[in-house]
Amino acid sequence: MITIPFKNKGAFLYVEIYEYLKREITDGNLKFGEKLPSKRSLASHLSVSVNTVDAAYGQLVAEGYLESSPKRGYFVCQIDTYLLKQNNHVSEKKIKKPETKSVKIDFSPNAIDQRIFPYEAFRKIFKVTFNEYDSYLLNKPDLQGELELRKALVELLYRSRGVRCNEDQIIIGSGTSHLLQILGLLWGKNKSVVLENPVYLKAYHIFEKMGNPVISIDIDEKGIQIEPMKKFSDVAVYVTPSHQFPLGMSMPIDRRIRLLNFANQDQGNYIIEDDYDSEFRYNEKPLPSLQSIDNNGKVIYIGTFSKSIAPSFRISYMVLPEALLKAYLEIADAISSPVSSLEQKMIGAFISDGVFEKHVNKMRKVYKGKRIVLMNALKQWGDRVKITGENAGHHLLVQLDNGLTEEAMYTRALAQGVRVYPVSPYFIHGAENYKSMVLLGYGSLTDKQIYSGIGILKEAWDL
Amino acid sequence: MITIPFKNKGAFLYVEIYEYLKREITDGNLKFGEKLPSKRSLASHLSVSVNTVDAAYGQLVAEGYLESSPKRGYFVCQIDTYLLKQNNHVSEKKIKKPETKSVKIDFSPNAIDQRIFPYEAFRKIFKVTFNEYDSYLLNKPDLQGELELRKALVELLYRSRGVRCNEDQIIIGSGTSHLLQILGLLWGKNKSVVLENPVYLKAYHIFEKMGNPVISIDIDEKGIQIEPMKKFSDVAVYVTPSHQFPLGMSMPIDRRIRLLNFANQDQGNYIIEDDYDSEFRYNEKPLPSLQSIDNNGKVIYIGTFSKSIAPSFRISYMVLPEALLKAYLEIADAISSPVSSLEQKMIGAFISDGVFEKHVNKMRKVYKGKRIVLMNALKQWGDRVKITGENAGHHLLVQLDNGLTEEAMYTRALAQGVRVYPVSPYFIHGAENYKSMVLLGYGSLTDKQIYSGIGILKEAWDL
Repeated sequence: MITIPFKNKGAFLYVEIYEYLKREITDGNLKFGEKLPSKRSLASHLSVSVNTVDAAYGQLVAEGYLESSPKRGYFVCQIDTYLLKQNNHVSEKKIKKPETKSVKIDFSPNAIDQRIFPYEAFRKIFKVTFNEYDSYLLNKPDLQGELELRKALVELLYRSRGVRCNEDQIIIGSGTSHLLQILGLLWGKNKSVVLENPVYLKAYHIFEKMGNPVISIDIDEKGIQIEPMKKFSDVAVYVTPSHQFPLGMSMPIDRRIRLLNFANQDQGNYIIEDDYDSEFRYNEKPLPSLQSIDNNGKVIYIGTFSKSIAPSFRISYMVLPEALLKAYLEIADAISSPVSSLEQKMIGAFISDGVFEKHVNKMRKVYKGKRIVLMNALKQWGDRVKITGENAGHHLLVQLDNGLTEEAMYTRALAQGVRVYPVSPYFIHGAENYKSMVLLGYGSLTDKQIYSGIGILKEAWDL
Repeated sequence: MITIPFKNKGAFLYVEIYEYLKREITDGNLKFGEKLPSKRSLASHLSVSVNTVDAAYGQLVAEGYLESSPKRGYFVCQIDTYLLKQNNHVSEKKIKKPETKSVKIDFSPNAIDQRIFPYEAFRKIFKVTFNEYDSYLLNKPDLQGELELRKALVELLYRSRGVRCNEDQIIIGSGTSHLLQILGLLWGKNKSVVLENPVYLKAYHIFEKMGNPVISIDIDEKGIQIEPMKKFSDVAVYVTPSHQFPLGMSMPIDRRIRLLNFANQDQGNYIIEDDYDSEFRYNEKPLPSLQSIDNNGKVIYIGTFSKSIAPSFRISYMVLPEALLKAYLEIADAISSPVSSLEQKMIGAFISDGVFEKHVNKMRKVYKGKRIVLMNALKQWGDRVKITGENAGHHLLVQLDNGLTEEAMYTRALAQGVRVYPVSPYFIHGAENYKSMVLLGYGSLTDKQIYSGIGILKEAWDL
């Protein structure tokens, strides 16, 4: 008969019986077809209640170790051999992430100033939005995104960027890269994608990983060149016309029109306009979006709140031309909306209440100030430095003519606790003309840090 | 000379000058190469300040309509013809979504009971987490997901599901479908995917859209069959072993072991274990996960908070075997973490504070109660109804033997304001053996609604 060394005759006695019998079966001590004692007799033998044995047998039947045959009893099931016992496989090995040396001043192009976030307004909006009397609060978000947010975006994008659309054309995503993945799913892997060179690397990696043929075309001082793309058709052209990433120029109107005209050449051609930081243009008002001058439904407009609110919120949006909307709706259910209803509702309220635009205006002033500080600080380097891409966004580019390589610039800066961002990694091919060039972002730095950082770089780079 | 019919001599005078000149250029009244009046002379002519004209010219230069030539003046740029003017393309057409007739009682398998959500605990956690003194609060989330949440999951998944992993193996995603997309990116389109038939449709659509060859294998009473998959290698097998979706059986131990043994046959074989609702098992304790008995790093474990917290939160998680982790880290930067830092931190605290497990226990009791009510109500239908899949989750299946088709069941129910969910749409092929079968979900219904709904269905289906 079965003897079980109970550790603890407590509430979970049945668990011990269950564990014991399971072990006996996997160890092969109880074999396929073997009959177990009846519940009553095992209970009496172990001095436990019949219910306790019943619970243990029940669990073993549910998991497939035992089979219950009416009126005959319980039998051991057939189980393939497998190393069930040696189950101490808890990996302690951890993959080490690349070390970051101690960085005191980080000229990251992606950082924002967290000090000016409207914490109080956000708390109030949470209070109002997170309301148990809203019977939709805990529901799955609408497949395209919550209606409040999409309606707020229709107005906002028209006012700020001239984008013309209705709320049915808007898709809410969890970041630009996620929206590009959706486009990939929608088009399938046969659609070629034309990318700027240099380029926003995520766009390159996403399309490459999705298996779409990637064509990279060099940019000149006006942005991506149109002539080289003319031999292609049925392509999607990914561009950053407001503020080319990373080089920072904005695409002038003649290039924009030539790009739109190229898109019109073929029914399958589309333009993906990534307008990632258009809110931040300092000397002129932001250029109207490409979408605003597109009359033929060729432009897919993409924006994000990473720069205008904070990178911690993973909310982006895409305006689809009507022709792509139907294809999207076919896959929408499989994709699901990736952003929590609560945050969609909150950001929607943030915009409709006018808090968002006030906040962006405030941020623009703050970044404009930082930019002036940085430009003034850079004067101490004299004219051996070429500055470009300084009219918008949160970063500019500096290029040295003293023969220092990009790598040396990076390494020497890091040795002094200053991090700068080389431009060559953004190139898909041939960065030869962009030697000794790095990005300097100023979004998160204080005036003092900017001055001090530029001073340290002057020394480190022998300027 | 230029005459501008000012509408409003206010603060944005320069905008009117800019708009006017832009129109003149796009209309072709000002032609390529034409010289504009000097700033000073135009200002004097229009009785505005030179600064105002300077701002207008500046914007036109920035957008590429004008070119400024030092000491010579401003000239019109060359711009391709394009229908810039006819820019009234605001689509009013909206794609109509499928109508839903007025549904009074919805037996949806995906709905939860919103009445038992821990609103107050959630408010408190927001208050603590949304804290301006946390200098990481607004940062982009960690590429794999916030560490707090991953650490909390390591403990939770071990306690509740026997999952053995460390926090470096966990990836936070914005829903199961998003995690499957990541796996698709990681493997590329040549990896074949074996699916259960019937299946969780999103899994099918995602892999199909990503271009992965899809093999669907019929399930029997133990779940997916192993023999038919033996002729394949280098495949990922997507399964729902705790509670097959939609049919509801749980995979017994012998089938689990045969599945693991199949996975071990080939280095490229993997199992995707979607454990979407394992928290909700009523007669026995939840079955240990497949991952917990896998000694060879073959199982990718996926879970979600859609059922255990609410579908409004788009947070899912995946435990990757070490062998896949490196491949993930290579694409992690391109993907970015898709879930807001704030919500990751909040759910992390929710778990570590013990609120989550208390909540799940409460929900389990509530759903167990609903399930008893439903099972009792179904007794009035007599034995002309076969009930399956009732041991777990938020739904069960009923099959009639009175010759009524699934479609008739659906239509007749809907005519009485009751929505049921036919099972055949979940089949990739051959649903012949599952005629007259529908899903009845009870997650969101009150006891009264369940009784009343089952009464209405009795009439509608001539039972």
